[in-house]
Amino acid sequence: MSSNLSRPLVTAPAETAVLALLLAEGPLSRVELARRTGLSSTAVTKAARPLIDDGYLYELPPERTAPGAGRPVNPLAVVPDREFFVGVKISIDQVFGAVCDLRAGIRATAVRPLDACTPEAAAALVGELVDELLDADPAFRDGTRHLGVAMNGDVDRDSGTVRRSGLLGWRDVPLADLLTAATGLAVTVENDVRALTVAEHWFGEGVGTGYFALVTIGSGIGSALVVNGRLLTGAYGVAGEVGHICVDPAGPRCRCGAHGCVEAIASTDAILADVRDLTANPDLTLDEVVGLARDGRPAARERFARAGHAIGVGIATLVNVIGPERVVVSGEAVDAYDLLGRPIQDAYAAHAFGAASRCPLSLRPLPWEDWARGGAAVAIQALFPQDAPTAAAITVG
Amino acid sequence: MSSNLSRPLVTAPAETAVLALLLAEGPLSRVELARRTGLSSTAVTKAARPLIDDGYLYELPPERTAPGAGRPVNPLAVVPDREFFVGVKISIDQVFGAVCDLRAGIRATAVRPLDACTPEAAAALVGELVDELLDADPAFRDGTRHLGVAMNGDVDRDSGTVRRSGLLGWRDVPLADLLTAATGLAVTVENDVRALTVAEHWFGEGVGTGYFALVTIGSGIGSALVVNGRLLTGAYGVAGEVGHICVDPAGPRCRCGAHGCVEAIASTDAILADVRDLTANPDLTLDEVVGLARDGRPAARERFARAGHAIGVGIATLVNVIGPERVVVSGEAVDAYDLLGRPIQDAYAAHAFGAASRCPLSLRPLPWEDWARGGAAVAIQALFPQDAPTAAAITVG
Ligand SMILES: [Zn+2]
Ligand SMILES: [Zn+2]
Repeated sequence: MSSNLSRPLVTAPAETAVLALLLAEGPLSRVELARRTGLSSTAVTKAARPLIDDGYLYELPPERTAPGAGRPVNPLAVVPDREFFVGVKISIDQVFGAVCDLRAGIRATAVRPLDACTPEAAAALVGELVDELLDADPAFRDGTRHLGVAMNGDVDRDSGTVRRSGLLGWRDVPLADLLTAATGLAVTVENDVRALTVAEHWFGEGVGTGYFALVTIGSGIGSALVVNGRLLTGAYGVAGEVGHICVDPAGPRCRCGAHGCVEAIASTDAILADVRDLTANPDLTLDEVVGLARDGRPAARERFARAGHAIGVGIATLVNVIGPERVVVSGEAVDAYDLLGRPIQDAYAAHAFGAASRCPLSLRPLPWEDWARGGAAVAIQALFPQDAPTAAAITVG
Repeated sequence: MSSNLSRPLVTAPAETAVLALLLAEGPLSRVELARRTGLSSTAVTKAARPLIDDGYLYELPPERTAPGAGRPVNPLAVVPDREFFVGVKISIDQVFGAVCDLRAGIRATAVRPLDACTPEAAAALVGELVDELLDADPAFRDGTRHLGVAMNGDVDRDSGTVRRSGLLGWRDVPLADLLTAATGLAVTVENDVRALTVAEHWFGEGVGTGYFALVTIGSGIGSALVVNGRLLTGAYGVAGEVGHICVDPAGPRCRCGAHGCVEAIASTDAILADVRDLTANPDLTLDEVVGLARDGRPAARERFARAGHAIGVGIATLVNVIGPERVVVSGEAVDAYDLLGRPIQDAYAAHAFGAASRCPLSLRPLPWEDWARGGAAVAIQALFPQDAPTAAAITVG
């Protein structure tokens, strides 16, 4: 984050651990918090105190687990409305926004068309969108300090710079600064797939896992990985490039220059282009191609099977290399789940190595609100010191 | 480690960090130690004190960096001979051993043939080998508490159990217990590729990297990965399976059941079998095949090129997924570097994605002493609390 408008809410390891656990998995008793963090009960109480005073945590009414079981326990919980976060996803022709609470619950949403895909136009539009969202409730206006932005490309979260976005055609854009100027909020920018993975890992299917992977399929194929509770960023900024795993040396040339990448075979663009060729119908839309496949037209049906196979092999590779606890597959192309799901699962099962095959793969659609929520999740992360592990990987004591 | 003969030498985070940094990168001044660990100078001095008293660290003579630069600084250094570690590699027909000092310097070595590949026979032989090694110097006998064992297979380091070794035909062997009984030493058991990676990461080319990968090529193809300073173990015990990355769906069937795995194409066994077929000479040895290739015989030469290509694509996949800072390629097959090196590097360059291609790949031979040293490195790690990050990933303050 380049702006200094917000600093971490917590800095001490004990406070960090207690807040992270309660955000992801609360309410929890002090005993449970102590067990999970490795802290003593006294240390948990001490760590929670300033967060209670600040209104971020509250004590639930005491509950007695069993007669004569000693002192009543007051579980601790997060006050979801204590602070709000705006999340925004910038796509090539639209900007999606959401107001989320402290636990990434979506409280309001909005969308606007993006006419000119320049950084300045996008910044102005985000400014309007944020205004619209914060106007929805006086509590949002008062309680929001932070904006999180999710977008395609190579993003340097620390400096708030978009180093390169192929899709938007941007290079070295100081987006956090532009957006702080436009909104008055502290701004964190992150790659959209990584932001979505943060949301899913902290507040979704990844809760409680130390190793987690999310794969998105659509016009691009990407993934982000969590290892030991931390997002994998790669020594040179590159990691999780499942779209550019080579699965067929005789396969088509990819935009990256190599041959047989998963993306070159399995992106919706590649499927569409091939079926247009095969049917000699250059005007087909993707929806029509899906329709043809569902009607049993072999050219279309087999093309989806081939795409699903490439994706399944790519995911098996990811799993054999990283060993995640679970994998979530999402994205626009999951709407064609009936066509892709079986070949993905079959190829994955055939190529997952040994015990790695125990890693479950779940496919599910990805509404645009989830992308915006990914931005908000990244903003929520800014409450923590940089590089703080998530709840699943916490041990302090 | 299943035996309780040795506990960590350091437990507090500050001591852990200071000792780890000095082991890998010492001597270092207190100022440098403070900068690297995030501790105050006072905290560094306090952390070093018990380790100096215990004879693990010593203060070098004061050095004045510049006239009038203030108090003289006494860099801290490790006393390499304070403790010794025996490392052993159990292969299918031999047991290799080495005595190493605190900084993994090899001080003595020994090898014995293993006649019967049973756990009991191996344990008895390791007992004899350790005796021979410790007899080499009274300082070894007095100063050694810990044995580290490196071997093929799926090993559970925490319990000291070999869950499964395909090569040795073992299953659920409580090897640490057997070896503690045979040697009287505390024992840590680890997969051999992971042990080698630990040695290389703490004491070799991986020093100072947070993300690091080591790939071994030979009759098997494996790898181990370090992420954020920690060995990647995978949620289900599987990770770094570069040998079972599918690089050619039309490729040969692999022992894992899938088709086109790197190992099925590029293991020395696969190369040998194919060249025997191609030349209709079933008695060829691997050395003869290497000779044929060096003499320019196309069948052999092209077979090595194909193997190198598969390895290069596999490594590019690893790099695209994990984003390591550097990759070391080693193993028996590196003796055929002149045949494999160029195709490996070419395929790697063609398939590494974007900035990931900046990750350097170095190939180098792997003498058997290095395998044994890997075992010793794992024993040295037992000085630290489980799961302590290596020097490169340390920040305490
Ligand atoms: Zn590609
Ligand atoms: Zn295989």
